[in-house]
Amino acid sequence: MDVAATLSTAGTSPGFLHRVTIDLGERSYAIDIGAEVLGDPGTWAGLPRAATAAIVTNDVVAPLYLSRLRSALAPHFPRVLDIVLPDGEAHKDWPTLNRIFDALLTHACDRKTVLFALGGGVIGDMTGFAAACYQRGVPFVQVPTTLLAQVDSSVGGKTAINHPLGKNMIGAFYQPLRVVCDLATLATLPAREFSAGLAEVIKYGPIADPAFLDWVEDRMEALRAREPSALAYAVRRSCEIKAAVVGQDERESGLRAILNFGHTFGHAIEAGLGYGAWLHGEAVGCGMVMAATLSQRLGRVSADYVQRLTRLIAAAGLPTRAPRLADDNAARYLALMRVDKKAEAGAIRFIVVDEQGHAELCPVPDAVVAEVIDACCV
Amino acid sequence: MDVAATLSTAGTSPGFLHRVTIDLGERSYAIDIGAEVLGDPGTWAGLPRAATAAIVTNDVVAPLYLSRLRSALAPHFPRVLDIVLPDGEAHKDWPTLNRIFDALLTHACDRKTVLFALGGGVIGDMTGFAAACYQRGVPFVQVPTTLLAQVDSSVGGKTAINHPLGKNMIGAFYQPLRVVCDLATLATLPAREFSAGLAEVIKYGPIADPAFLDWVEDRMEALRAREPSALAYAVRRSCEIKAAVVGQDERESGLRAILNFGHTFGHAIEAGLGYGAWLHGEAVGCGMVMAATLSQRLGRVSADYVQRLTRLIAAAGLPTRAPRLADDNAARYLALMRVDKKAEAGAIRFIVVDEQGHAELCPVPDAVVAEVIDACCV
Repeated sequence: MDVAATLSTAGTSPGFLHRVTIDLGERSYAIDIGAEVLGDPGTWAGLPRAATAAIVTNDVVAPLYLSRLRSALAPHFPRVLDIVLPDGEAHKDWPTLNRIFDALLTHACDRKTVLFALGGGVIGDMTGFAAACYQRGVPFVQVPTTLLAQVDSSVGGKTAINHPLGKNMIGAFYQPLRVVCDLATLATLPAREFSAGLAEVIKYGPIADPAFLDWVEDRMEALRAREPSALAYAVRRSCEIKAAVVGQDERESGLRAILNFGHTFGHAIEAGLGYGAWLHGEAVGCGMVMAATLSQRLGRVSADYVQRLTRLIAAAGLPTRAPRLADDNAARYLALMRVDKKAEAGAIRFIVVDEQGHAELCPVPDAVVAEVIDACCV
Repeated sequence: MDVAATLSTAGTSPGFLHRVTIDLGERSYAIDIGAEVLGDPGTWAGLPRAATAAIVTNDVVAPLYLSRLRSALAPHFPRVLDIVLPDGEAHKDWPTLNRIFDALLTHACDRKTVLFALGGGVIGDMTGFAAACYQRGVPFVQVPTTLLAQVDSSVGGKTAINHPLGKNMIGAFYQPLRVVCDLATLATLPAREFSAGLAEVIKYGPIADPAFLDWVEDRMEALRAREPSALAYAVRRSCEIKAAVVGQDERESGLRAILNFGHTFGHAIEAGLGYGAWLHGEAVGCGMVMAATLSQRLGRVSADYVQRLTRLIAAAGLPTRAPRLADDNAARYLALMRVDKKAEAGAIRFIVVDEQGHAELCPVPDAVVAEVIDACCV
């Protein structure tokens, strides 16, 4: 399926307060993109009435934005609670998720309570999953404060926690009421996390839009300098592509898997090193080099294309050489990838790309994968 | 809304291998009712292809039916796993749920894996919730082996685990592929559990079908003697009523709450005594006496009706006097009920009935509820 063909062709000028709509029937919602919008009470008009809003955030984001969001929500909700979790992928687990349930139940929150996920991908995934499960489902709003969350994880309704035996293995497809991307929050993002977010921006070019790949290459310096117009377009275009894909395949029965380009290798890196050692975006950056190398072995892209993508990933400040995970390194990678959610009947499947912006899910023989691992590891 | 009017009017003759369909658009499914069907490979034809079937059951049901179900599934699935959990409501918690995830991940089960819930309400609720969450959703089949599960909990897609601060507080609406009620399994059910199931059978009369209430009264002796034709009709009519209600309101935005007649009081009893002290059906039986008494205080039913229902609940072998939970007994009940999922903005809401088979959700002042508690407690 040609995703690019289904995209709107709105020009490349940055649009403050741009709205991207994700079309999922009665579960459709808006992704609102703007600067300094999080602290504006007007941003939060039109949400369902409820006795309580509960902001879920972490101890790094809370000092920066919590009081601003709380004040902006106060005119709309009689009670605004906050639930501050420890920061980091290492805490994306059941005990931490349960702190959300404990807080909601201790405060007798009913099933109209609206949860707000204020933070990066981990907060968004956990808050979304908590919303999916609390009293069998309460509404929630994504307020992503990292680049990765704004361009990828907050959009599309994938929620989850990790299990010791696999990343994001316990979760739900559960859509938010709304996503609000405040570009101003990106100014406070540490460089390493910003680069991690660029991995997901880069991803959209190879899988769906060669012109966007060109644009990202041209504007990488402006992006890393966090130039507002560059950020605005990167977030908007990423959300447009993601919305087009998710709108066609909400529950990943097919097409949606292309958004996992680089992720099968990336998940193995994250699990193999222990969650949190590499950031998710770092693992995905490196994983895209591996997936491009695999695409080349399968005759779908040239060596030049692999080099071009590798240079771009390096220019984003991301690792391009994969870590060794064990003495029997390829076997370890393969074992970790066999629990990937795309695996079926024991066969690992990979997203491979061509140079025209098409991607597809492919089972690949272990021997070919092992060669790629050997070629890409330090 | 008049549920009875939407029901099919198929006569009262027992139908072996009767099929009740629950109409939920693309999530529609069949409830198949028969005797000795669980061990027949033909019963399991037509399910989706998958590499693995995983039977989740408990240590009481496993010795009775696990090997029979495993043999019947073997022609359909290359691999049949079993996951045997400890029995009882006290284990309807996260650590036990996680044993399902551990087993599925240890055996590298992919997201086409079909889970089979073989057991009562606890197994059905936990297996359904595990299916809702594992890799963000895998298909599952309900194989209820208790009366309570056959007439109520296996139908309609409510899944959950308990939280120390409230029953069924963490869960999902997630529909099975199919429900298979094998009436033969009811022969091995302990008397106390059988009576608990009768509470949910009794429930359908007051909320939707006065003629069914008459029938249950007439046939209570035959039911308790587990006469096959009486069982077949009780299961079938209960499923028909439940299917009609759920088909109109899958996610309990309104009508579906009527299925909770007696449950608000019942949940307080269960939580107040500690989960597992009373069976769920016992608490619901006693809760219906309380809810009927409340309906009388509100002028909706006569004292005769309350007595009639009380006698029927007693005849089913269920408690009709509520336990004292604390020195400040009514306050304790009220505090426990305030976390009920039907509560909204701190107001507890109750299902009240009239004598014509209509039920509705009503907020009730605490003082009135406290009087009912005082009147109904030992």
